[in-house]
Amino acid sequence: MVSKQDEFVSHITKQSEDFSQWYTDVILKADLVDYSPVKGCMVIKPHGYAIWENMQREMDQRFKATGHKNAYFPLFIPESLLQKEAEHVEGFAPEVAWVTAGGKEELAERIAVRPTSETIICSMYAKWIRSYRDLPVLYNQWCNVVRWEKSTRPFLRTSEFLWQEGHTAHANENDAEEETLKMLEVYREFAENVLAIPVIVGKKSEKEKFAGALRTYTMEALMLDGKALQAGTSHNLGQHFAKVFDIQYLDRDGELKYVWTTSWGTSTRMVGGVIMVHGDDRGLVLPPKVAPYQVVIVPIAHHKDGVLEKAQELYGVLKETFRVELDDRDTYSPGWKFNEWELKGVPVRLEIGPRDIQKNQAVVVRRDTGEKAEMSLDSIVENLNKLMQDIHNNIYKKALRFREENTHVALTFEELKDIIEKKPGFVKAMWCGNPACEAEIKAKTGATTRCLPFEQERLGEACVVCGEKAEKMAYYARAY
Amino acid sequence: MVSKQDEFVSHITKQSEDFSQWYTDVILKADLVDYSPVKGCMVIKPHGYAIWENMQREMDQRFKATGHKNAYFPLFIPESLLQKEAEHVEGFAPEVAWVTAGGKEELAERIAVRPTSETIICSMYAKWIRSYRDLPVLYNQWCNVVRWEKSTRPFLRTSEFLWQEGHTAHANENDAEEETLKMLEVYREFAENVLAIPVIVGKKSEKEKFAGALRTYTMEALMLDGKALQAGTSHNLGQHFAKVFDIQYLDRDGELKYVWTTSWGTSTRMVGGVIMVHGDDRGLVLPPKVAPYQVVIVPIAHHKDGVLEKAQELYGVLKETFRVELDDRDTYSPGWKFNEWELKGVPVRLEIGPRDIQKNQAVVVRRDTGEKAEMSLDSIVENLNKLMQDIHNNIYKKALRFREENTHVALTFEELKDIIEKKPGFVKAMWCGNPACEAEIKAKTGATTRCLPFEQERLGEACVVCGEKAEKMAYYARAY
Repeated sequence: MVSKQDEFVSHITKQSEDFSQWYTDVILKADLVDYSPVKGCMVIKPHGYAIWENMQREMDQRFKATGHKNAYFPLFIPESLLQKEAEHVEGFAPEVAWVTAGGKEELAERIAVRPTSETIICSMYAKWIRSYRDLPVLYNQWCNVVRWEKSTRPFLRTSEFLWQEGHTAHANENDAEEETLKMLEVYREFAENVLAIPVIVGKKSEKEKFAGALRTYTMEALMLDGKALQAGTSHNLGQHFAKVFDIQYLDRDGELKYVWTTSWGTSTRMVGGVIMVHGDDRGLVLPPKVAPYQVVIVPIAHHKDGVLEKAQELYGVLKETFRVELDDRDTYSPGWKFNEWELKGVPVRLEIGPRDIQKNQAVVVRRDTGEKAEMSLDSIVENLNKLMQDIHNNIYKKALRFREENTHVALTFEELKDIIEKKPGFVKAMWCGNPACEAEIKAKTGATTRCLPFEQERLGEACVVCGEKAEKMAYYARAY
Repeated sequence: MVSKQDEFVSHITKQSEDFSQWYTDVILKADLVDYSPVKGCMVIKPHGYAIWENMQREMDQRFKATGHKNAYFPLFIPESLLQKEAEHVEGFAPEVAWVTAGGKEELAERIAVRPTSETIICSMYAKWIRSYRDLPVLYNQWCNVVRWEKSTRPFLRTSEFLWQEGHTAHANENDAEEETLKMLEVYREFAENVLAIPVIVGKKSEKEKFAGALRTYTMEALMLDGKALQAGTSHNLGQHFAKVFDIQYLDRDGELKYVWTTSWGTSTRMVGGVIMVHGDDRGLVLPPKVAPYQVVIVPIAHHKDGVLEKAQELYGVLKETFRVELDDRDTYSPGWKFNEWELKGVPVRLEIGPRDIQKNQAVVVRRDTGEKAEMSLDSIVENLNKLMQDIHNNIYKKALRFREENTHVALTFEELKDIIEKKPGFVKAMWCGNPACEAEIKAKTGATTRCLPFEQERLGEACVVCGEKAEKMAYYARAY
C-alpha cells in the first residue's frame, strides 16, 4: 500500500532513474522557479530568490572586507564599444541581445544588452584613472546579464541571469595576479564554508579561458550525476582591455603606463550547484547558511490546548537567532507538512505536541540524515546552533566523499576514454599543454579540460594523448 | 584673498545662482555618478551606490516586516504581453527599448526591455493563483527598468534606473485598497524617518494616475528650488490586469472570481531627492541613516607621535557602531580633507590631534550646522549616536520649515497664476475634480496637480478655475 506520505514524494523522479528529470521536478515542486513566457528566461520564485539573497549577503560581506566597493554601470553597451577587444567580441557576439529601437525611433547604432561589462567599465576607467594614486580601483556590481542561449535550464543556463562581476585595475602584473587569485580564494572559501560545496581550484586551459583574458582561474564542483559545474571564475585580463580602452596612469617615475585589469564573477548558477550537490530523492537539502528557512516548527495536534501558544512562543525565541517558519496552517496534516518542508530542503524540523510540552522538549528532525531526536527547550538555541554547524559539516563531508569516490586516474588515452564513458566524475590525467590534445579528448569523449589544479600530482611523465613530455596534470569531465 | 579652502569649494555653483548647475556640480564632484557612453544612462559610482544600498536595506526590512517576499521576473516582455492592457501600453509604448535580434537571428516577435513589470508578473499570477488559499500574493522585486527618455538628468530621469516594484494580488477591493495605502504609509515613514524628507501624501488625479491603475497614491516632496518631486507611488490596479490576464481564484463560496492587484514603486530617483532637499552651497548634506560614511576621522598633525595610532584606535572603536572612514592620506592637508568630506556630505567629522589626545577628546564638526564642539572619548559612541539623531531631526525640521514657508494658498485662478509665476513651492487651491480645470492650470502656469492630500483643508467652496462646487483641495506645483 502506498501511504499518503509516499504518494506525495513519488511525484519526484528518483535521481537514479533520470537525474535531469529529478532536477526539473525538484526546482518546480520546491517552488524555486517557474518557466516564463519569454524564451529561455526564468522566474525566480521567493523560495529560490531567498537562497540567492543569502548568497549575495555572504559574498558581499567578503567583497567589502577585501576592500571592494559596489557600483552600477549601464545595462546597455553600444556595439562599437563591445567590438573594441577582438577576442572578447568574438566570444560574446553570437549570444548578444540587440536593442535596435527606442520608442518609435530606430537607433543609429545597435545597442547590446550587456553579456558582461568589461567594455563599458573599462571605458569609464579610462576616464577616471589618471595617476598611481588612483590605483587600485576595486569595484564590483550586482546585476543582470543576458546571453541569448539556444538551450536553457533554470539556474544552470538561462538567457538572463543574475550575477556579480568584480572589475579591478592595478598598477602592475603582480598586483593584478594577486587580486585574481585572492578573489578565487574568496570564492573557494565561500563555496566550502557557506554552500558546503567542495571545489577544485585551478587554472583554465588556453582554450577554456575567458574571451579576452590573459589567464582564467576557476572553481569546479562535482554534481551528483557525475558532471562538473564551473561555479565561479576569476580572470587576469592582462593589459588587453587597458590597451584598447587606453587606460593609462602617470606612475611615480613620471612615466605613462597601461594598467592591468581583472574581472571575476559568480551567478545564480550556484543555486543550481547547491541543488545538484546536496539534493536527494525527497527533494532539496539546503546548506543552513543559505537556506531561506533554517528551522520549521510544525505543531502536532495543534487544536489541543496550549500547543499553538507553545509553538508561537518557541517561534518568538528562535527568530532572534534563526530564519524560522511556524507552519500553523490548519488545512494540512502534519505528515503533509513534513513532506513539503523536506522537499523544500529546510535543514531542521521541530515538532511540538502535547507530550513534548509536558516534557519541555521538541522533537528535532534533521533533513540531511533524517535522524530524529528529542531536544530540551531550555538550551534549544545553543543546541540548534551546534546542529546547524553539524549539518553543514556533514553535507560538506558527504559531498567531498562523493567527489573523491568519483575522481579517477587515467594513465593512458584508452583508460581515459573508458572511464569517461563508463563512470561518472572527474578524470585526472597528465597533459602536455597542447590544445590539439584537449581537442582530441573532447572530440572522442565529450569531456572538457576543467582545470589545471593548483594541487598537482605526478601521474607520469607523458601526455596521455600524444605521449609528449607533460609537466601538468589536468582534470577532465563532462560538464554543465 | 581667496584661501585654498574657498578656492576648492568655489568649483560648485551657488544654489541661488543656478540651482540646476549646482545639482550637476554636486553629483559629479561628490563622486555620486558619471555620464556614460550610452545616451541617457548613468554610471552610479560607489559613493552614490552606497546611498542606494542603504536605502534598499532600510526599505527591504520594512517590506519583509509587512509580509512581503522578494522574487525576480524576467527583464524581457514579449510585445504581445505588453499590449494586453490598453491604457498601460498607451502609457509606456512611447518609451520602450525594443530587442529585435538575438545573436545573428532576427526575432519573430519584438521584445520589450521592461519599463515596469505588471504584464509579465500578472501573466505568472494567472498561472499560480487557483484558490482563495493562495491569496494574498505579496511579492516585491529589486531590479533595473528602462524608459527611453529624450531628456535626462542623473537620478531624476534616466533611460535605465534601479528601483523596487511590489506586486500583490488580493481577494477583494477592500484588501487591495488596504495594501495600497499600507505601502504608501511604509514609503512615508521611510521618507521621513530615514531620508529626513517631509512628504505630502495623497491621491493622484485621474490625469496623473499610473497607466492602467484604478487609483494612484503618491508622496510628494519639495526640493530647495521650489519644484516638487514625486518620490514614490502606490497603485490600486483594480481588476484591470486581472481581467486581461485572466487571474481568477475559486472563492470559499465555490465561485470563480477575479483578483484585485496592486503595485508600488520607489527608485534611485530618491537619491536625487535627498540631494535637492538637504544640500547646500558646500555640497551634499546626507541624512545619517543613508550616508555611506556617517563619521570621518581626520588626524591633525598626523606625523606627530601617537596621533595616527590614536586615530586608528578611535576608528576601531567607532566601526562597531557606525559607518566610519579614517582619512589617513598623507598627500592632502587637513583643510583639503575637510572640504572634500563636506562636499561628500558626511554628517560628522572628527578631528584628532596632539592637543586633543592630551585632553582625551576629539573635535566634532556637524555637517548640517557647521558647529564645532569638543567631545570626550570616554562616552563617544553614546554621544555620537545622540548626535546622529539630532542631525536627522534638525535636517528634517529644516526641510519641513522650508516647505511650510513655500506652501501658498490661492483663492482665485489669478492668485494661483501669480504665485506659480513668482514664488517657488506648492500652491494649495480648491478643485472641482474636472480634468479640464487641471489642464487649464497646466497650460497657463506649467504647474501640475501633485495630489489631493489626505489632510484636506477647506479653502472655500468653489474651484479656483471654473467656479463650480469644489469639495477637494489639491496641491499644485511645477515638478521634476
